[in-house]
Amino acid sequence: MSKLNWGMVGGGAGSQIGPAHRLGAGLDGAFAFAAGALDHVPDAGRAYAQSLGVAPDRAYGDWREMLEGERVRDDRVDLVTVATPNATHYEITKAFLEAGFHVLCEKPMTMTVEEGEEIVRIASATGRICAVNYGYTGYSLVRHMRAMVARGDLGRVRLVVAEFAHGHHANAADADNPRVRWRYDPAQAGVSAQFADCGIHALHMASFVTCQEVASLSADFASCVESRTLEDDAMVNFRMEGGAVGRLWTSSVAIGRQHGLTLQVFGEAGGLRWTQEQPNQLYWTPLGGRVQTIERGEAGLSPEADRASRVTIGHAEGMPLAFANIYADLAEVIRAAKEGRVPDPAADLYPRAEDGLRSMAAVHGAVASAGRQGAWVDARPPMFRAP
Amino acid sequence: MSKLNWGMVGGGAGSQIGPAHRLGAGLDGAFAFAAGALDHVPDAGRAYAQSLGVAPDRAYGDWREMLEGERVRDDRVDLVTVATPNATHYEITKAFLEAGFHVLCEKPMTMTVEEGEEIVRIASATGRICAVNYGYTGYSLVRHMRAMVARGDLGRVRLVVAEFAHGHHANAADADNPRVRWRYDPAQAGVSAQFADCGIHALHMASFVTCQEVASLSADFASCVESRTLEDDAMVNFRMEGGAVGRLWTSSVAIGRQHGLTLQVFGEAGGLRWTQEQPNQLYWTPLGGRVQTIERGEAGLSPEADRASRVTIGHAEGMPLAFANIYADLAEVIRAAKEGRVPDPAADLYPRAEDGLRSMAAVHGAVASAGRQGAWVDARPPMFRAP
Amino acid sequence: MSKLNWGMVGGGAGSQIGPAHRLGAGLDGAFAFAAGALDHVPDAGRAYAQSLGVAPDRAYGDWREMLEGERVRDDRVDLVTVATPNATHYEITKAFLEAGFHVLCEKPMTMTVEEGEEIVRIASATGRICAVNYGYTGYSLVRHMRAMVARGDLGRVRLVVAEFAHGHHANAADADNPRVRWRYDPAQAGVSAQFADCGIHALHMASFVTCQEVASLSADFASCVESRTLEDDAMVNFRMEGGAVGRLWTSSVAIGRQHGLTLQVFGEAGGLRWTQEQPNQLYWTPLGGRVQTIERGEAGLSPEADRASRVTIGHAEGMPLAFANIYADLAEVIRAAKEGRVPDPAADLYPRAEDGLRSMAAVHGAVASAGRQGAWVDARPPMFRAP
Amino acid sequence: MSKLNWGMVGGGAGSQIGPAHRLGAGLDGAFAFAAGALDHVPDAGRAYAQSLGVAPDRAYGDWREMLEGERVRDDRVDLVTVATPNATHYEITKAFLEAGFHVLCEKPMTMTVEEGEEIVRIASATGRICAVNYGYTGYSLVRHMRAMVARGDLGRVRLVVAEFAHGHHANAADADNPRVRWRYDPAQAGVSAQFADCGIHALHMASFVTCQEVASLSADFASCVESRTLEDDAMVNFRMEGGAVGRLWTSSVAIGRQHGLTLQVFGEAGGLRWTQEQPNQLYWTPLGGRVQTIERGEAGLSPEADRASRVTIGHAEGMPLAFANIYADLAEVIRAAKEGRVPDPAADLYPRAEDGLRSMAAVHGAVASAGRQGAWVDARPPMFRAP
Repeated sequence: MSKLNWGMVGGGAGSQIGPAHRLGAGLDGAFAFAAGALDHVPDAGRAYAQSLGVAPDRAYGDWREMLEGERVRDDRVDLVTVATPNATHYEITKAFLEAGFHVLCEKPMTMTVEEGEEIVRIASATGRICAVNYGYTGYSLVRHMRAMVARGDLGRVRLVVAEFAHGHHANAADADNPRVRWRYDPAQAGVSAQFADCGIHALHMASFVTCQEVASLSADFASCVESRTLEDDAMVNFRMEGGAVGRLWTSSVAIGRQHGLTLQVFGEAGGLRWTQEQPNQLYWTPLGGRVQTIERGEAGLSPEADRASRVTIGHAEGMPLAFANIYADLAEVIRAAKEGRVPDPAADLYPRAEDGLRSMAAVHGAVASAGRQGAWVDARPPMFRAP
Repeated sequence: MSKLNWGMVGGGAGSQIGPAHRLGAGLDGAFAFAAGALDHVPDAGRAYAQSLGVAPDRAYGDWREMLEGERVRDDRVDLVTVATPNATHYEITKAFLEAGFHVLCEKPMTMTVEEGEEIVRIASATGRICAVNYGYTGYSLVRHMRAMVARGDLGRVRLVVAEFAHGHHANAADADNPRVRWRYDPAQAGVSAQFADCGIHALHMASFVTCQEVASLSADFASCVESRTLEDDAMVNFRMEGGAVGRLWTSSVAIGRQHGLTLQVFGEAGGLRWTQEQPNQLYWTPLGGRVQTIERGEAGLSPEADRASRVTIGHAEGMPLAFANIYADLAEVIRAAKEGRVPDPAADLYPRAEDGLRSMAAVHGAVASAGRQGAWVDARPPMFRAP
Repeated sequence: MSKLNWGMVGGGAGSQIGPAHRLGAGLDGAFAFAAGALDHVPDAGRAYAQSLGVAPDRAYGDWREMLEGERVRDDRVDLVTVATPNATHYEITKAFLEAGFHVLCEKPMTMTVEEGEEIVRIASATGRICAVNYGYTGYSLVRHMRAMVARGDLGRVRLVVAEFAHGHHANAADADNPRVRWRYDPAQAGVSAQFADCGIHALHMASFVTCQEVASLSADFASCVESRTLEDDAMVNFRMEGGAVGRLWTSSVAIGRQHGLTLQVFGEAGGLRWTQEQPNQLYWTPLGGRVQTIERGEAGLSPEADRASRVTIGHAEGMPLAFANIYADLAEVIRAAKEGRVPDPAADLYPRAEDGLRSMAAVHGAVASAGRQGAWVDARPPMFRAP
Repeated sequence: MSKLNWGMVGGGAGSQIGPAHRLGAGLDGAFAFAAGALDHVPDAGRAYAQSLGVAPDRAYGDWREMLEGERVRDDRVDLVTVATPNATHYEITKAFLEAGFHVLCEKPMTMTVEEGEEIVRIASATGRICAVNYGYTGYSLVRHMRAMVARGDLGRVRLVVAEFAHGHHANAADADNPRVRWRYDPAQAGVSAQFADCGIHALHMASFVTCQEVASLSADFASCVESRTLEDDAMVNFRMEGGAVGRLWTSSVAIGRQHGLTLQVFGEAGGLRWTQEQPNQLYWTPLGGRVQTIERGEAGLSPEADRASRVTIGHAEGMPLAFANIYADLAEVIRAAKEGRVPDPAADLYPRAEDGLRSMAAVHGAVASAGRQGAWVDARPPMFRAP
C-alpha cells in the first residue's frame, strides 16, 4: 500500500507539538512527510524541513507558498496539518480547505464562534475533511468508553465528571517566562487561558464518550496567580443534550499534578473512570458490583478499542500512539474516499470541524458566564441551536 | 488517671454510628461508658445499655430521664454524645448544655441557622463544650495538613478542591429501601440530601485545613435519580475569607466510588493531596519539586499529627482511630478544665458549635443558590457577618 | 455481658507493642485491664500499671508475683498477654499455662524448637488456650482470602508469594542505635534477625490463607549492612504440604518500603493479592477474567470476613482493629468455654501454639539451610513429621 | 539527514514482534524499511514485504537470498533485525555479521553458551555491531536509574530485586493452544521456558541498571501446571560481581498480573522502584527521606534519560518508544561510525552480544542449579571467567 503524502504548516525547530505530530503521522507508515512550511522565518523553515527529509522543492518558506506549490502537483499532499500559533489557524485552515486539501488543525480551530461556523460551512461545501486535534480521544480505552456507552453498558448516562489539572503555571515568578506568559496575555491567548487550553480537551472528551453534546453551562473562573487577567483555574457546570449533568474542573496551579486529564462517567447501570497519565487501564463498576480493571489490549474489547491498539496487553501505549490513532483514522478515511468505499466505522472517530466549533462556543460561553457571576448560558453555536 | 464518665443519647441496636462512637470513646480508655438513653423505645434502650455494661440505674428510657438522672449525681457524666435522628439534635443538645453538661453532637448540629446560632450562644454563655462530630478531621494527616498550612509551608493558599463522592445511592430501585429513601425525603432529611450529608464534611475539612472560613458560595444541585426531589449530586464553588478559591463536588450516584472524601490544597509554595480511603499517606509537592509521600507516623511530623497517631509507621490507622482522636481531644480539654490548666494546644482541634453553625449556613446558602440558578450567596451565618 | 479480666506481662512505659495490645484488648470492651506486671523494674511496673487504671493490689512487680497473686483470686484474669523480651516468652508462657491460665504470647513463642514442642504439649495437656500473636491474620480481608481458598474459589493452590520488606534498618550508622542494634546481635535476637522478626509473619500468613503447612524450604540469607552477623535480607523458597510452591522475600534494607507485608496466592482458577499497608482492598482475578477490587465491608463477604469488620465500607480499618480481632476471637472462645458451648467457627481463627512451633521450626530450618548454601531442609517440627 | 537502510528477517504476517520492530525502527524516521525476508514461506514473505512498502527486488524469499542480494548493493542495509524463531537466531546473526552487516538480534541471541561466545568473537573480529533486543532497557526512566547508580546517588548497591510475573499461561486447558504450548516444549523452547522467556529480561535489567554483572546463582524451578516439563515459575537468587545480592522471581501462572516486570534497587544511600506497566514514574527514596516520584520528562534528569524521552511530562510514553530508543541508539552509533566520530555516550546503551551471551550462561546456569536442588553455580560464560 503506497503511502499518503503529508504536509505540515508550523511545528518548526523548538516547537513542542511539531515532533508529536511527526511522530503520530509517521508511526504507522501510512503517511510520508512530503512537504512543509515549518517556520515563520522562511529560510529557517526551509532548512528545517529539509533536515527532516523533505525534498528541497517542497520545503516552503511560508504557508501561502506551500499552498501554491502543492495545489499544482499531481502528488500533492493528501493531508495538511496546521500547527501554527492559535490566531492563524482559521485563515490557514480555510485557505487549504478551499483549495481542496484535507486538513488536520491543531486546537483551537478558530478564535471566534463565527470563524468556527465558517469553517464548518466550508468543509461541508467542499467535502473536504477538516479534523481538529483533540488527540486524547485517540487512546484505545477512551474509544472503548465511548463504545460501552453507545452499546448501553451504562444505561442512561446521568453524570460526567471531567478534570484537567496541572501545576506547571503555579510559579508566580513565571510572569517573565515567555513560555508561560503568553497564555495569560489576552492579546495572544484570546478570551480564555486555562479553560481554552486544557479544559476544552476534557469537555470534548466528555462529549466524545457520552455521545452527547453540551447544551448549556455555568462557569466560575479564577486568577489564582494575582498578576493574571485571564483565568488559571476554572470550574464549569454543564448540562448535555441527552440530559446528563456535567462537572469540569481545570487548573494550571495545581502543584503536584502533571497532566491530570481524567474522565468519570456515571450511568444508571455502571460507572467508568479513566485517567490520561495511566491510559492503559480503565476502571469499570457495574451497578451493585465491584470495580474491575479493563486493560488495553485485553481480549473481547470493542472494535473501536482494538483498532486503536498496537501492542500486546501489559505493554503501555502512550500519548504518541493516541496521536497516531487520529492519523490512522484520517489515513483510512482518505483512502476510502480515494477508493470510493465506505471507511471502517471504527476509524470514523476523529474529531472534526463541528467539534472545533462547539469547543469555541463553549469557551465563549464560559467566558460570558464567568463574567456574569456564573449565569447559565447556551453553550451551543448558533448554527446548531434549534430554531 | 481515673476515667471520665461518658454518656450517650441514641445509637441503639442496629445503629451504624453508635458502635463507631463507643469504639472511639472507649479506645484510649479515657472514657467509661457510664450512662445512656439509647433507643426511642424506652425498654429497648434500657436493655441495650445494660447489655453494653451500663449500670441499671443509668440505663435510661429517654433523654429527659437521663438528663434528670445525671444532673443530680456527683459522678454525673463528663460528656454526652448525641447521636439521635437529625431533627432532634438541637433540642437535646440545647437541654444538656443548659444543664451544664459538655456535649458532642452528631452532625448536623441543627436543622436551621437560627437554631445553630442559639446553640453557639448557649455554649458561650454556659462555658460548656459543644463539639460537633466532623470525625474525619481526627485523622493524623489531616491535622498535619492544617499544621503545614498554619506554619506557612504552602505560602498563601490559593485554591482548595474538595470531593466526597460515593455510589451507594445509585440504584434507582432503592426508592423502596428505607435506609436510602429517608435521605431524599424533605420531611426527614430537611432542605438538602447529599450536600448536607456528605458534602458538608468536605466543606468543613476545607476550612479546618486552610484555617479559612467559607465566605460565599454558588451551588448547582442535581437529582440524577429521577424520582428524587432532593439532590443526589452537587457542585459548590466558594470563596474563603482569606481569599482562597474553593471547589467542592459531592455525589451519591458515583458508581465505583466508596467513600471518596478527598482534599487538595494548592498554595503559592506547594500542593497537598489526601484521601480518606488511604488516610495514612499524604502527598506533598513543593513548588518546582517532586511529589513526596508523607507517611503517618514518620519522624518529624507536627505535634498535631503526632498526638493523633497511635501505632508505628506502615501500620494503617483507620476511621475508628480518627473518631477516637476527637474523643481524645475532648478528654484532654475536659481534664484540663477540671484541673484548671491550659489544654495541650494540639488537642484543641475538635470541631465545635461554630463549625456546626457555619455548616448549616452553608447548607441553607447552597440550597438558596441552587434554587436561584447558582447565584452567589453569603455563606456565613448572620452572627458572623461583618456589621 | 460482663467483661473478661485481662492481664499483661511486659509492655511497660516506652514499649511499642504494649499500647497496641491494650488498644486491641480494650477496643471492643470485651476485656477489662485487671492486672499487670509491666516492667522489669518492679516499682516502675507497679506505678505504670496503676497509671493505666489497674488496681494497686493487681499492679505487680514481676510476673511471678502476678502468677501467685492471680492464681488465688476468684476473679483471676481470664487471659494473660506475654509481651516481654523474646528470650523470656517460653518460661513465662509455660508457667501461666501450667497454672491454668489462658495465654496470648507475643511472637516468637520460644527461642528453640524443643521449647516450642514443650509449649504445644503443655497447652494440650492442660486444655488451656495458648495463642500466638500473628496479629496480621486478624485483618478482615486476610480472613476472607482464607475463606475463598477454603471454599474452592481458587481451585488447587499452585503458588504463594509472600513478602515483608521495610527499609528501617538500612542506615549503616545505626550500628549504635540500640533500637536497631539488638536485632542483629545473636545474644539477644537468637539465630535469625529479619527472617525471625518479619519473614515469619509472612510465612505464617501463607499457611493461614492457603490452609497448608510448610513442608520443606531452602534459604538464602544476606547481611547487606556489612557489620552485621545476622541477616538483614532473606529469600526463602518452600514447598507446602498440599503441594503449593512458595516464595518469600523479606528485607530490612529496602529503603522506601515501610511495612511491606504482601501476599499473593495463585491457584488453578484465580489469583489473589493483598498488602498490609492498604488492608481494606483485596485484588481478585478469576482465571480468564479481570482484576476485581474486593472492599472490606462490602455485602456478601464470608462470615469470617464479616465477623472481623467493624465499620462500613469505605472507612479504612487499620492494624489496631486487626489486633482487636485476635482478642475478639479469644473472648469468644474463652466465653464459649465458660458457657459450655461451641464457639463461633468464624472466631476460631486465632494463631496458636502449633503455629508458634511451626514458625520456630521454619526459622531454625532456614538458618540451617542458609548455612549450607541453600540446601533443602525439612521445615516441620519433629513432632509433626510423619513417622 | 538521509535515512539509514533497514532490513528485517522474520516478523511476517501474524507475528507479534514484527510490528513492534517496524514501529520502533520507523518511529523516529531514522531508518527506511528497505529490505526483508519476512516469512519462512518465500512467496508469502515477498508479498508481505511489498505490502509494507519494500521494493520488489528487495522483498526476499529467505534470509540467504537477502544476504546475497544485499551484500552486493551500494545501498545495502545498514542494519538487519533478526526476528525469526529462536533456534535460528544464531545461524542468521552469524552469517550477517560475517558478511559485514550490523545486526539487531531478538532474544535469545543463541540457544547455547558456546554459540553465544562464537557470536561475541565474530562481532569483535569484524567490528560490526551485534545488538540484542532487551528492549525494556530503552525506557527513559530505566536509563535514569542506571545513571543514578553510576553517579553514586545510591552509594554502594546492596540489593536488587527483580520480578517479571504474568498470568497468561495459567490456564491448564491451554495445553492445546499452540501459542502457549511451544514455550513448554523442550524441542522448541530449549532448556528453559519462563526464565528464558521473561526472567532473562529482568536479569538483564538488573545488570544494566546496577552496572554489575551476575557472578553466581541458585535457582528453584517449578512447573505449576502439572502437564509441563519446563518451568512456568522460577526463583533465582544471585550474587553480582560488585557484591550486590540479587533476587529474581518470574512466573507465567500469576493470574491477575499482566506484564509485571519490576525492578527495585537498594543501596547504602537510597532505594529505587520502577515497574514496566507504569513506566513514566520512578520512585526514589533517599536514606532517611520520603518516597519521591520522578516523572519521565521532568526537568533536570540525566542526559541518558533525556535522550530517551520524546514528549512532555505527564504524557505517557509506552513500550513502542522504548523499542524506538534501542533503534535510536543504533542509528546514532552507525552514523557516528560512518562519519568517523565518537557517538553520543548517552546513545551507547543498547544491549549487545556480550549481554546475549551472559543471559544464555545464566539460563544454562539456572537450569543446572535447579536440577541440582538449587546448588550455587557460576553464572558467567567461560570466556568471562577469571583464569
